[in-house]
Amino acid sequence: MDTFRVTYHLDVEAGNESSRAEEVAAEQTVEVPRSAIRDAFVAEEILGVVEEIVEAPEEGGFLARVAYSVETTALDPAQFINVVFGNSSLHADTRCLDIELPPSLLAALEGPKFGISGVRKAVGVYGRPLTCTAIKPMGLSTEALTDLLRVFARAGIDVIKDDHGLADHRFAPFEARVTSCLAAIEQVADETGHHATYVPNLIGTPKTVFRQLAFAQEQGVRAVMVSPMLIGLPTFWELCHEHASVPVLAHPAFGGAQRIAPQALFGKIFRLYGADAVIFVNFGSRFSPSERSCRALADGLVAPWSGLQASLPVPAGGIAVESVGSVLDFYGPDTMMLIGGNLQVDPTLIPQRTREFVEAVRDHFDD
Amino acid sequence: MDTFRVTYHLDVEAGNESSRAEEVAAEQTVEVPRSAIRDAFVAEEILGVVEEIVEAPEEGGFLARVAYSVETTALDPAQFINVVFGNSSLHADTRCLDIELPPSLLAALEGPKFGISGVRKAVGVYGRPLTCTAIKPMGLSTEALTDLLRVFARAGIDVIKDDHGLADHRFAPFEARVTSCLAAIEQVADETGHHATYVPNLIGTPKTVFRQLAFAQEQGVRAVMVSPMLIGLPTFWELCHEHASVPVLAHPAFGGAQRIAPQALFGKIFRLYGADAVIFVNFGSRFSPSERSCRALADGLVAPWSGLQASLPVPAGGIAVESVGSVLDFYGPDTMMLIGGNLQVDPTLIPQRTREFVEAVRDHFDD
Repeated sequence: MDTFRVTYHLDVEAGNESSRAEEVAAEQTVEVPRSAIRDAFVAEEILGVVEEIVEAPEEGGFLARVAYSVETTALDPAQFINVVFGNSSLHADTRCLDIELPPSLLAALEGPKFGISGVRKAVGVYGRPLTCTAIKPMGLSTEALTDLLRVFARAGIDVIKDDHGLADHRFAPFEARVTSCLAAIEQVADETGHHATYVPNLIGTPKTVFRQLAFAQEQGVRAVMVSPMLIGLPTFWELCHEHASVPVLAHPAFGGAQRIAPQALFGKIFRLYGADAVIFVNFGSRFSPSERSCRALADGLVAPWSGLQASLPVPAGGIAVESVGSVLDFYGPDTMMLIGGNLQVDPTLIPQRTREFVEAVRDHFDD
Repeated sequence: MDTFRVTYHLDVEAGNESSRAEEVAAEQTVEVPRSAIRDAFVAEEILGVVEEIVEAPEEGGFLARVAYSVETTALDPAQFINVVFGNSSLHADTRCLDIELPPSLLAALEGPKFGISGVRKAVGVYGRPLTCTAIKPMGLSTEALTDLLRVFARAGIDVIKDDHGLADHRFAPFEARVTSCLAAIEQVADETGHHATYVPNLIGTPKTVFRQLAFAQEQGVRAVMVSPMLIGLPTFWELCHEHASVPVLAHPAFGGAQRIAPQALFGKIFRLYGADAVIFVNFGSRFSPSERSCRALADGLVAPWSGLQASLPVPAGGIAVESVGSVLDFYGPDTMMLIGGNLQVDPTLIPQRTREFVEAVRDHFDD
């Protein structure tokens, strides 16, 4: 039988771990009492199987690995998440820690279409980490956002993205913003020779998001950004695989990585669903994931995975220009460094801080 | 200024609550250091405003109410969630507890198209609670699921839904299942005069879900079910408001992955986005929400809300036939009672237990 595996953390007293794990295996598949299962196919091929239970090494509780038949997923992006963590997400004692997938599921869900190499090709930067920042805050006019983009482009930033809070607002409408920012990119390229990449944020219902993507692609954008948990993972999958002709950068907003471990959600599931680059909050930032979970997350984005393309790690979340070196030492050269607000701490020093950031990244791995 | 309010629970030490609340108000809007805000419009109309901070009465920590300009949402279903809880969902110390919306946002997001009265009209039951069960487990063939549906329909159940785990599986494909179940409903109606309502589960990417909905509606279904958190809230909104011509029942699967209180997510946001009926896990069930949060959730579904239709409360999650009376006393007559696996505990007694369930609900509020 073709199976995939999910590891759950169960916050239960010793002695209850086995029955609790069996409950999860049933909850995620048959959702009836075992006494109600009369059908041999259901009992043998559908009901989840608890394969292993071990004590959680540090936090207490137990780690339970459950095997599910690939058939349960119908090879559908929504049903896959449903089997992984649909009802069990509602249990306060259960967290989803890890997924392990066979080639059949990886082939069905496909992963990134462009991956790290496609992002590098779109941006035109090879052999060193990439730099990234965001135009913000929300509330600025299209003109003010474009002015800021020009400052960043002139200072040599590789990727200048919309803040994930920029929607189709009255004060900076999506289409006008895309047109204006792309023109400014060309203008700065003519002036300086540096051709930055502008990445617009897509947000809305499917109709809106697919229309925004089509518009942006027609205008010549070389990458787009979207928040998979805001628009929904199945919508994200359809966007990546049926609509996008450019690399897709995934933002973690609404990811609430509390009941799903960040390394599982951002490190594996986002990649599995097609993110070419994944923004995540770094340890020691204004968010507070552990160093170990960031390591596992970044490793997950690039590890060999049955032929899936690698996703580019994009640590973020309040990194200071001064700590660029230590962050790069941790993540290595296949990284896009995203610094947002820290470039704007002193509005008069934005060009200078941005150049310091650009140079720190450019020079870090040089000898 | 037209504003809406979000209440967060902050798990911080006394003395830090004020600065932490200000951080949330900035994180959800401008996402830059306050020193970087030079624009008056941004400072006055976009940056969130902390209105009140009080100690959390029972659990410790603090409750912070933040006011946001409606303008930040661009009146978009995805951007609204982004402002409510996008980045802050990533903070382990922050939970979203409640939302309060002005008429402008309620009018934009619209809420249920059919509401309780529309569900009652579709099902043809007035003046008493409704009964509901699910055909399952996943893995049964279309024929076996249809046989089970016939048993439930003959025993007098009002609403017979697909289990939320039924997708477009090889062993029970969506279109064949819908056709077969609808025919069985008619057959039992001819035999017994009781016309049950079959509710298929829609699941997949937007393309798949909209196609499933169109097929089901063409075949004459009178309601459908979908899991908003699996397909994504913006996709759910578009389904309800631009595709559905029948009432939509919302299932809570994957709802626990976010750090939002059940009464806010299921009691308000699901209604706001268009759910005509909302399934939620009951206290004392195999899930473990508090009685108080279930009360608040059910109240939220029916409370007057600027003209929005009410959503039908559907308590579920392992309710036993024997406890129907006490559950109905708690939720009252405008309730749909959903009992799934408990009807199937003893496969030989399904018709008998189902009739007991139907009669317990029918008779409960009679004098």
